[in-house]
Amino acid sequence: MADFVAPLQNLVDRFRALPGIGGKTAVRLAFAVMESSEEEAAAFADAILRAKQDIHLCSACCNISTSELCHVCADDGRDHSIICVVEDAKAVLALERVHEYRGLYHVLGGALSPMNGIGPEQLHIRELLARLGDDTVKEIIVATNPTVEGEATAMYLSKILRPLGLTISRLAYGIPVGGDLEYADEVTLHRAIEGRRPL
Amino acid sequence: MADFVAPLQNLVDRFRALPGIGGKTAVRLAFAVMESSEEEAAAFADAILRAKQDIHLCSACCNISTSELCHVCADDGRDHSIICVVEDAKAVLALERVHEYRGLYHVLGGALSPMNGIGPEQLHIRELLARLGDDTVKEIIVATNPTVEGEATAMYLSKILRPLGLTISRLAYGIPVGGDLEYADEVTLHRAIEGRRPL
Repeated sequence: MADFVAPLQNLVDRFRALPGIGGKTAVRLAFAVMESSEEEAAAFADAILRAKQDIHLCSACCNISTSELCHVCADDGRDHSIICVVEDAKAVLALERVHEYRGLYHVLGGALSPMNGIGPEQLHIRELLARLGDDTVKEIIVATNPTVEGEATAMYLSKILRPLGLTISRLAYGIPVGGDLEYADEVTLHRAIEGRRPL
Repeated sequence: MADFVAPLQNLVDRFRALPGIGGKTAVRLAFAVMESSEEEAAAFADAILRAKQDIHLCSACCNISTSELCHVCADDGRDHSIICVVEDAKAVLALERVHEYRGLYHVLGGALSPMNGIGPEQLHIRELLARLGDDTVKEIIVATNPTVEGEATAMYLSKILRPLGLTISRLAYGIPVGGDLEYADEVTLHRAIEGRRPL
């Protein structure tokens, strides 16, 4: 995929650096941008810059926000005694879509992964502990992802939070609603049986 | 997919406006940009602006170029007596990758499509005719895509170019190399039989 004029090749390379974008898709996207209007291209470039410049981390929960406190932390109607700990901002959005949870969040910014050099210092765990200083928070729900790293992070959190005398829980594992037992993997089924509830 | 902070939602929408990018991919790409470094985001935004600002159409062949004449038209080593007419810049790149063709190109900027309001005036046909003014060009190879629109464009070109006394040809249709007869469609097979050559 060489031989493009330099500015086009440069744009192709930029698109290709994005996750899940291969060579042909990068070319298609670069051509689309090149063929868009001058205004659209300017708006796209501006959107990229603004996403970097205007978005910061909430000073309390480390979720993405355009203001000092994110809209969840700034909402007095939310239950400030519960904190749901998640790996990233996408998890907050997923949970918010359910319209079920009314507590606060804490975004770790990843999960423990020693192989990738991510230890407790790389995550926003210090910030989480700082929020537990007064007696406002009574309960922590650990909602890290159901992966090896997410599990390890949950274990680590339970270990350091237990001495604080808080209620600590983990999201339930089990078969997904609408799923088919036939296609559920063994570990999930095992957890579903383990976590069975009286009818 | 609502509830994103505005600058992020804006970027998601920009990505989503690109061809073949759905909602979830747009979110993934927007997050990737947001999580990239300040320098990378600035370079990406700059690449978009430059792709618009620095790329123009070659004044001769209408291919994309950063200079007045594209590198093909500016190359004295190329055969200036043959012009290969293609629909877009991507076709030029595809043909250049073959390292076979040594003539020039002419990029129409699309194909005739009355349904979409694309008539001869919307294509760079006037510019093609201007290049045939002196007697330099002896041969035209019509290499529009093997689609209904590409075919219609080829027909139209042959009609208006025939009176000029040039050699006019069309790329050969047939079964693609490495293909399997079993999977070739009827029209392609028909063209392959029609265009059979002595062994």
